[in-house]
Amino acid sequence: MPLPISPLAPARFPDLPPIAGVRVAGAACGLKRNGSHDLFLAALDPGTAAAGVLTRSLCSSAPVDWCRHALARGRARAVVVNSGNANAFTGKAGDTTVERTIAGAAELFDCAAEEVYIASTGVIGVPVPPDHIAGKLPALSKSLAAGSWPDAAAAIMTTDTFPKGATRTCTIDGVRVTLNGIAKGSGMIAPDMATMLSFIFTDAAIAAPALQKLMSAATDRSFNAITVDGDTSTSDTALIFATGRAGHEPIADHRDRRLGGFRKVLEDLLVDLAQQIVRDGEGARKFVSITVTGAASARAARRIGLTIGNSPLVKTAIAGEDANWGRIVMAVGKAGEKADRDKLSIAIGGVTITENGQIVPGYDETPVAAHMKGQDIDIQVDLGIGRGRATVWTCDLTHGYIDINADYRS
Amino acid sequence: MPLPISPLAPARFPDLPPIAGVRVAGAACGLKRNGSHDLFLAALDPGTAAAGVLTRSLCSSAPVDWCRHALARGRARAVVVNSGNANAFTGKAGDTTVERTIAGAAELFDCAAEEVYIASTGVIGVPVPPDHIAGKLPALSKSLAAGSWPDAAAAIMTTDTFPKGATRTCTIDGVRVTLNGIAKGSGMIAPDMATMLSFIFTDAAIAAPALQKLMSAATDRSFNAITVDGDTSTSDTALIFATGRAGHEPIADHRDRRLGGFRKVLEDLLVDLAQQIVRDGEGARKFVSITVTGAASARAARRIGLTIGNSPLVKTAIAGEDANWGRIVMAVGKAGEKADRDKLSIAIGGVTITENGQIVPGYDETPVAAHMKGQDIDIQVDLGIGRGRATVWTCDLTHGYIDINADYRS
Repeated sequence: MPLPISPLAPARFPDLPPIAGVRVAGAACGLKRNGSHDLFLAALDPGTAAAGVLTRSLCSSAPVDWCRHALARGRARAVVVNSGNANAFTGKAGDTTVERTIAGAAELFDCAAEEVYIASTGVIGVPVPPDHIAGKLPALSKSLAAGSWPDAAAAIMTTDTFPKGATRTCTIDGVRVTLNGIAKGSGMIAPDMATMLSFIFTDAAIAAPALQKLMSAATDRSFNAITVDGDTSTSDTALIFATGRAGHEPIADHRDRRLGGFRKVLEDLLVDLAQQIVRDGEGARKFVSITVTGAASARAARRIGLTIGNSPLVKTAIAGEDANWGRIVMAVGKAGEKADRDKLSIAIGGVTITENGQIVPGYDETPVAAHMKGQDIDIQVDLGIGRGRATVWTCDLTHGYIDINADYRS
Repeated sequence: MPLPISPLAPARFPDLPPIAGVRVAGAACGLKRNGSHDLFLAALDPGTAAAGVLTRSLCSSAPVDWCRHALARGRARAVVVNSGNANAFTGKAGDTTVERTIAGAAELFDCAAEEVYIASTGVIGVPVPPDHIAGKLPALSKSLAAGSWPDAAAAIMTTDTFPKGATRTCTIDGVRVTLNGIAKGSGMIAPDMATMLSFIFTDAAIAAPALQKLMSAATDRSFNAITVDGDTSTSDTALIFATGRAGHEPIADHRDRRLGGFRKVLEDLLVDLAQQIVRDGEGARKFVSITVTGAASARAARRIGLTIGNSPLVKTAIAGEDANWGRIVMAVGKAGEKADRDKLSIAIGGVTITENGQIVPGYDETPVAAHMKGQDIDIQVDLGIGRGRATVWTCDLTHGYIDINADYRS
């Protein structure tokens, strides 16, 4: 039974332009029971640099372990992603499937195994026959094209209710550069898991170590600044590939001033994709932005923001359209970061509710109650003790979440 | 609108015997809008030792701050607890109310201010008139009695659906000693908070520093081993008072061998109360025991257990009666403690599902599915890397939780 499209979904999938040196394809390979797209393949020109961020889970899946290994080299020629099966917790059988898939792609593209990246999402604990995915690659490679982004985005979905894509351009050294990204979020049907995958492609010429620095920094302010339910998948993967075909002089140092524009649009692109993931959170009816200022550090601000965004009490209050600032105080207190009750200030929808550790004199809840009835909720928390700031995004916790995660069963 | 009594509630409130040196009373003082009991008073004989564990929230309430101050002395003559108003985030006004309440009780019982303990639970951010509670104490003190435990337990409830009490006896040096405890849990109605309060009374003669060691250790394996939604209140308080009236020789060292029985029944009493709190978790329909063995340390085992018990994905799967062991793997992975995917073993209802990082050959879900339909769910996780073990308790995450926390509004 397909889930209804999230009420927070964007109007349409954006037009993703071709990127020099990148061809993509998406098709069905039989891992999803309903026969829909479940295999994504990307072919990258020789010379493509790779970087990425992987789950911190200590029970990471075989594909994640492989990506960690391959990223040490920082070169890429192919990306193979399947949905429908996470190949997680499948023991030695899972390792074998990864090896065979990698070997198949390396043969197809005449490259080293370490130039192939792999990700899997879907059912866990069910082994995929070792040659199943590798056997589908030759046929799929025939449909590789510069413009198949909608197919690509669809092929990595699990229970996402809409495909997620974004594109940005900037200039490096006066040369126009393009970035395309696709992502999948945390839609789940038992026994699937909340896996976040994202793949970014650009024609910029940036050496892998510099690309890694840029990707890590941008991820901290995007994918690491969202939460749906606070759960961490064994398979979370965000990779970026830079073909270097745009034509500017290659850049080796992430501090190079010519990267100013790229740094900015990369973060903007990842924030766009991250927000789309939140907008497709299970059962989400409200999109919540939480800005924390005045914290001891940016890191402390983010941790406080995520503690608020992860609190079931805060999230259910938002679902109930209840301006329950007391639960925000509670969440600030439990975050474990420096806070002073008597300096804490909270605003919802731009209306200051508390200052100096108590409710503002003559507080009128009317405008705040009206704001809570909207689809976009803004929460601002000022700690009043430092200059650290961060914004995080989450959604409300609704009956829909329970429906999807408790009542549905595949 | 009163909530229906939890389906996991015990059949009845236990008979709590008198404890030499302790008199208690419960009554209505007008803080709860519906006029039910909201003020608990305990009078303790001179010479009573006090110890306790308080919330780690960095936005702790004024009453918590006072208890922290008073516990440094370790002596007690009176306990004043109100429900209906948490006196949290009430700024200087909140501090004044605490001061006046303490002063009123100290005058009534002719004791030092630091011999009075106070706790408050209920609405936050709404100041209580400074003399409101103090003004009710003289009348309430007239009804102090050795047997008023049901009134006492009722007076500290917020949206708990049943009063929580337990009693145990043991011997110290051949002398019979009694412990009574009452608690309130995490029932909440906006804008209330998930506050846990518990008060333990005993006639044992144990010096305050030793009592503190015993209480801290027992709390770690009881109140700190339960979770309903992972949220931490600004007001969590668990206090123990020892009147010394049982008649045995006073004990000053927590390592004293004569305390063996007391240590055991104290933990048992706190586990009983802690489990009652879980059984009254908002919307709870299933009581879940999670035992983690083979971890690197007991601390690691508890953290892994609580990460499983806090996972919305695990809790919704249990609500859906789905033996979704993949989500347990996910939670183990995100706990941040040492784990080896290929040594992890998971059993539900005593049936081993995974071993050596994969599903056991010929796994038959039938008996596990039957277990999931029951009211008591047992999850066992073995990490296979050490000797650390812990048991934690939680409940499922149901539509009832959303109803109580989103849809109800006081």
